[in-house]
Amino acid sequence: MAETFRVGLLGHGTVGTAFAEMLAERADAIVPVTGLRPEITGILTRSRGTFDEVLSSADLIVELMGGIEPAREYVLAAMRAGRHVVSANKQLLSQHGEELWACAREHGVQLRFEGAVAGVVPVIRVLQESLVASRVERIHGIVNGTTNYILTEMARSGLSYAEALGQAQELGYAEADPTDDVTGRDAAAKMAILARLAFSTPVHLDQVVYEGIEHLTGEDMEYARDLGLGLKLIGTAERVDDGISVRVHPAFLYAGHPLASVHGPFNAVTVESEAITEVTLSGPGAGGPQTATAVLGDVVSAMIPPASTPETTDSLAVVNDVESAFYLHMEVADRPGVLAQVAELLGMQGASIRSVVQKGLGENARLVLILHPLLESRFYAAVQLIGQLDFIRSAPRAIRVIDEEFT
Amino acid sequence: MAETFRVGLLGHGTVGTAFAEMLAERADAIVPVTGLRPEITGILTRSRGTFDEVLSSADLIVELMGGIEPAREYVLAAMRAGRHVVSANKQLLSQHGEELWACAREHGVQLRFEGAVAGVVPVIRVLQESLVASRVERIHGIVNGTTNYILTEMARSGLSYAEALGQAQELGYAEADPTDDVTGRDAAAKMAILARLAFSTPVHLDQVVYEGIEHLTGEDMEYARDLGLGLKLIGTAERVDDGISVRVHPAFLYAGHPLASVHGPFNAVTVESEAITEVTLSGPGAGGPQTATAVLGDVVSAMIPPASTPETTDSLAVVNDVESAFYLHMEVADRPGVLAQVAELLGMQGASIRSVVQKGLGENARLVLILHPLLESRFYAAVQLIGQLDFIRSAPRAIRVIDEEFT
Repeated sequence: MAETFRVGLLGHGTVGTAFAEMLAERADAIVPVTGLRPEITGILTRSRGTFDEVLSSADLIVELMGGIEPAREYVLAAMRAGRHVVSANKQLLSQHGEELWACAREHGVQLRFEGAVAGVVPVIRVLQESLVASRVERIHGIVNGTTNYILTEMARSGLSYAEALGQAQELGYAEADPTDDVTGRDAAAKMAILARLAFSTPVHLDQVVYEGIEHLTGEDMEYARDLGLGLKLIGTAERVDDGISVRVHPAFLYAGHPLASVHGPFNAVTVESEAITEVTLSGPGAGGPQTATAVLGDVVSAMIPPASTPETTDSLAVVNDVESAFYLHMEVADRPGVLAQVAELLGMQGASIRSVVQKGLGENARLVLILHPLLESRFYAAVQLIGQLDFIRSAPRAIRVIDEEFT
Repeated sequence: MAETFRVGLLGHGTVGTAFAEMLAERADAIVPVTGLRPEITGILTRSRGTFDEVLSSADLIVELMGGIEPAREYVLAAMRAGRHVVSANKQLLSQHGEELWACAREHGVQLRFEGAVAGVVPVIRVLQESLVASRVERIHGIVNGTTNYILTEMARSGLSYAEALGQAQELGYAEADPTDDVTGRDAAAKMAILARLAFSTPVHLDQVVYEGIEHLTGEDMEYARDLGLGLKLIGTAERVDDGISVRVHPAFLYAGHPLASVHGPFNAVTVESEAITEVTLSGPGAGGPQTATAVLGDVVSAMIPPASTPETTDSLAVVNDVESAFYLHMEVADRPGVLAQVAELLGMQGASIRSVVQKGLGENARLVLILHPLLESRFYAAVQLIGQLDFIRSAPRAIRVIDEEFT
């Protein structure tokens, strides 16, 4: 039985609840990685528990209260008491980061905060660890899912700003009071944190210039389309001649920019440096399970020294026959009944046709089918039979189709 | 003066040379993060040095020789002697990974290998650390830059496979003997490593089914375009009913798939799990500086316990006036000379016009300009003067344009 690693949780809202559930669910899988079993040993909410109780029974504190006070006071007290802290509080870090990081260094504890920026998109870890030896030149980010959702809907459906905001509120992508999101202030806090890490220089939220999306119109979207541009709320942190610039504003992006294809409530960050050109990370923005995943990743990291690759804990069979969708290309004699015979052979193997393109070629025709997913062995059995039909003019050619719905 | 952290380098080809240069250049910047100054204290090449000399003078061994032997023997010997090892050797890890990882665990040393998969795209770290607490369902990857370059050129310029391969060889994106790349074997090795990490189950290169791109034709590309699909060489590692499936094959992707917009010699990996939906990481594939960056990131990680955020080492000025490209939207009276006057005021501030769109609106017109980058203060000075012109019918509106060239 693995020893318990005791986690004290401050805050039990959407993210806190998701985190507590996820931790319980994944505790067994964390044991082989860390040698310890994490367990929530105390929860502080507005109506329940005291900070001192939660602290005294915890090896690590997870702060998901939000806001500045009393979160700041608790995080400092926890670190002074020698506890690692994981927080997803971007306001706190962008306004009191230097005080908190200095306290962490002084007391030799870790302060991790992946969940504070871009949900599960691991930009903090990548900046702090993967790219620690690089000289970062610039970061561009879509770091607010609410505004990206609104702009995507304005572009896609021709909605006005007000209509798109209303829709975002209905779907839970925007809060009843969306001020922090739509003015760019939320994105500015995140860019302050990213700039601090990228340039090892203190950056406070108050130093970030920001402009929101409230003044954008459907007409701007139309011009964007005419000009081949996408319109996004972009955070920028970059080296300039005299120092650094950190700012948030709407911006048009040319179609080839890696952020131009980031749609809906997604977040994405592009980090540029000379040696790497650029690396882009993207994924769903902050939501309960996404932020909880980032927080749990931080907790696991704090539990262990840097991972040697843990032992294999599974010995899953490596399976070779799987379901795939297929494109099937045939040259056939151009005569009646060809498609019917092909379809019959496919149907006998359970293949269902999604779309058909036929092109004449004089006496022959090219027949291209796209099939819904089926077991590859059954598909190839059908193809072999099809290849023997007398109207087939060259060997049928098959290429898989990746056909998932992405939300 | 910081103490020296001694790095022994095995192999001094393209990546090894880039790594040695980068380490020397970044050594100063690494001191505040680790407290130590890394230095190359020995190099083993075909014609120079012995392994024992390099080992005895090193705290950590970087293996960039490639191939199985003697790389395997040296990596094992280094770990048995208590040295951390950083390697970018995908063949070695995909064929002898379990032996190497077991040795690392037994001797309590780190074996890091970010450079082995997708160059600087930090997929190993993200799988091993950020997502260690997630149950990964599936990975899709474009993990071979050579084949992605060839397919991109076939799609873009209508080149045949042979022509695109020739062009890739001329530009240095493909080797003289491209077999490992174009058959999918290189991608298969990388997918074996990713599958091992994602599913904590042993996966050997020999268990990965792969199919290359040599049989693809220009016609397949045409159908892809007709059907709204992209055609890529895709590595897949996923849970299936009876275990896992790990495979590499050409596949069509619907336009909305995060990998569909990955072009040229880039790599990208999408990791899917229930809690996170999906996270996508993309960037330049393996090249000297990219792989060297990944290797150096691993070296720095091995030098330190998990980072508390280091002290700020710079106090760069946060600058607010930067150069931006702009979109400028005006409603104006529809009469001669309007554009000339606007252009003159802009020109006085050094603004240069990139494109113009004008639309009639009865007596008035909408005039939209896209400007090349200029200092924001100068742009806004011009806009203020333009706003006072007598033919302006509503306040001019400005939105920034992000206009970089991406390679």
